[in-house]
Amino acid sequence: VDAALLQEAQRRLDNKTKPLGSLGRLEEFARRFAAISGSLEPDTTKKVIYTFAGDHGVVEEGVSAFPKEVTPQMVLNFLNGGAGVNVLARHAGVEVRVVDVGVDYDFGQAPGLLNRKVARGTRNFVKGPAMTREETVAALEVGIELAREAKREGVAMLGTGEMGIGNTTPSSAIIAAFSGKTVEEVTHRGTGIGDRALENKVQVIERGLAVNRPDPKDPLDVLAKVGGLEIAGIAGLVLGAAANRIPVVVDGFISTAGALIACELNPHVRGYIFAAHESVEIGHRFMLERVGAEPILDLHFRLGEGTGAALAMGLIEAGVKVLKEMATFEQAGVEGNTVR
Amino acid sequence: VDAALLQEAQRRLDNKTKPLGSLGRLEEFARRFAAISGSLEPDTTKKVIYTFAGDHGVVEEGVSAFPKEVTPQMVLNFLNGGAGVNVLARHAGVEVRVVDVGVDYDFGQAPGLLNRKVARGTRNFVKGPAMTREETVAALEVGIELAREAKREGVAMLGTGEMGIGNTTPSSAIIAAFSGKTVEEVTHRGTGIGDRALENKVQVIERGLAVNRPDPKDPLDVLAKVGGLEIAGIAGLVLGAAANRIPVVVDGFISTAGALIACELNPHVRGYIFAAHESVEIGHRFMLERVGAEPILDLHFRLGEGTGAALAMGLIEAGVKVLKEMATFEQAGVEGNTVR
Repeated sequence: VDAALLQEAQRRLDNKTKPLGSLGRLEEFARRFAAISGSLEPDTTKKVIYTFAGDHGVVEEGVSAFPKEVTPQMVLNFLNGGAGVNVLARHAGVEVRVVDVGVDYDFGQAPGLLNRKVARGTRNFVKGPAMTREETVAALEVGIELAREAKREGVAMLGTGEMGIGNTTPSSAIIAAFSGKTVEEVTHRGTGIGDRALENKVQVIERGLAVNRPDPKDPLDVLAKVGGLEIAGIAGLVLGAAANRIPVVVDGFISTAGALIACELNPHVRGYIFAAHESVEIGHRFMLERVGAEPILDLHFRLGEGTGAALAMGLIEAGVKVLKEMATFEQAGVEGNTVR
Repeated sequence: VDAALLQEAQRRLDNKTKPLGSLGRLEEFARRFAAISGSLEPDTTKKVIYTFAGDHGVVEEGVSAFPKEVTPQMVLNFLNGGAGVNVLARHAGVEVRVVDVGVDYDFGQAPGLLNRKVARGTRNFVKGPAMTREETVAALEVGIELAREAKREGVAMLGTGEMGIGNTTPSSAIIAAFSGKTVEEVTHRGTGIGDRALENKVQVIERGLAVNRPDPKDPLDVLAKVGGLEIAGIAGLVLGAAANRIPVVVDGFISTAGALIACELNPHVRGYIFAAHESVEIGHRFMLERVGAEPILDLHFRLGEGTGAALAMGLIEAGVKVLKEMATFEQAGVEGNTVR
């Protein structure tokens, strides 16, 4: 990220008709967006959320409140525009693109679906690695390639989202593997399981980590052994966004697991990430600490899909508009501050 | 506020394709908006922020970083669309209306300005009451009347904003008077004063309270003695919004001082208020506690004008759209949760 542009953007913000720094984080969004995109008057017209969908073998251990059939059902709901992410993205002027990177269902020629299926779901990580190294790399490349295409299309801002019944389980496993926190410290209720199911979920993750012994120094190893296909797709999108200088807004718990993989692979990626919101999932804040991102919203979301990203993208765009549209003291004939 | 509508709105939200409660505060916004407006499919098309402007005699005590000429200068900036609130309101699809309720300047026939001038600024409260009882009531009635007109026009959501150099000083005085907190506990840097000016500001407020002895049991007395004309206008708008069943989004520190006066006059008003954001001003949280409102955003704003209200109105509208636009489990053919 370009330090000179960061500084020049802040200098322009400081000339706007407002007390210095008084638009707080909106100013941070504006200067970072300028520095990432390489422009002091960044265009924000085209905004896209990629919602990656994949299934999880570990669901057979009873870790989720919903049956795995809900993954393809929700994919169809996305394509019909009826899900939470569709409503919030429309509100924010953001397009949603749904990517099948690993759903255990044959969609045929579902209109609008980006078919990038690497496998029909992961394997149950209690019994061995969730994915092969090859599958992992292929799913990462799906995201990297989508970011490259987005750049060619002129997409100004990217958002991440996901759908995959059971996917808080691999996400908790990933942060446990990197942070060394106990599984209990990073595992929560997902879509809404009760106390007994939560106890079981913790044990399942502990077994998965014991069986696979993922190496935290090898992020691909962690991703392959206890991750997921949609998490890999998100990691790839984040890597690709950074490589193509596109600001990327990372949704909640599962998306941040993907972003964390990207940051562990290449710490420079951090400068391109905006954290959309603070999830209800208790492991999220440990991920955010490692990613070095301060969440923008705290609306007690725990839905995923890209719902938080959609709203945060609207706020980031607002920051960019402050930089582009606000009058300066000189333009408006307003006096600056005098008392110190 | 209609408890049956609150419940029915939540029942509808619970049938949407998402885990129960997983859109967190957005669901709260939706059900409250429905209950306030009296509709399960509330219209949100017409959204208006009233930005009340007024001057403050106490500015002669050196409490602000900006000279008082900036109040009319910023009013003109609002009318030209170049200020922060203009940019953020445009972004959120909100109209800004600027109300001169007490600026010490003759605007002549400034196009677009709502001339409701009650007085050319308040008097210096260190030397006696800032306003007479009559002025106070007149300024309150400006807000009440604007809310009534908004209802007639079909405005679906109201926001508050203000401009008045020096107006964090009366706002701190108001919360000190009601809460019994020390002036130091509720007084901060406003537009950005340094340590010495802050010390002076605290002493000025202490003198104002000692000279006037406002009676916290008589909210109009507090408002008249240590308040301001724009604060009274906001209090009136909040009262009028509640009376006309229009959800009202209260901006930051100064706006919440106005909302607090409204709530102290009539506690039922609380049910109609949304708190836009948490201000950097340290007295704000004590106001929010008394108003009983949880701020929606925390972006470290300290600008006022209605900037926080504009962004929060966008998020509240997003919540209403979730209620209106999301598919139900039945509509989408998605299975509900099974494990408990």
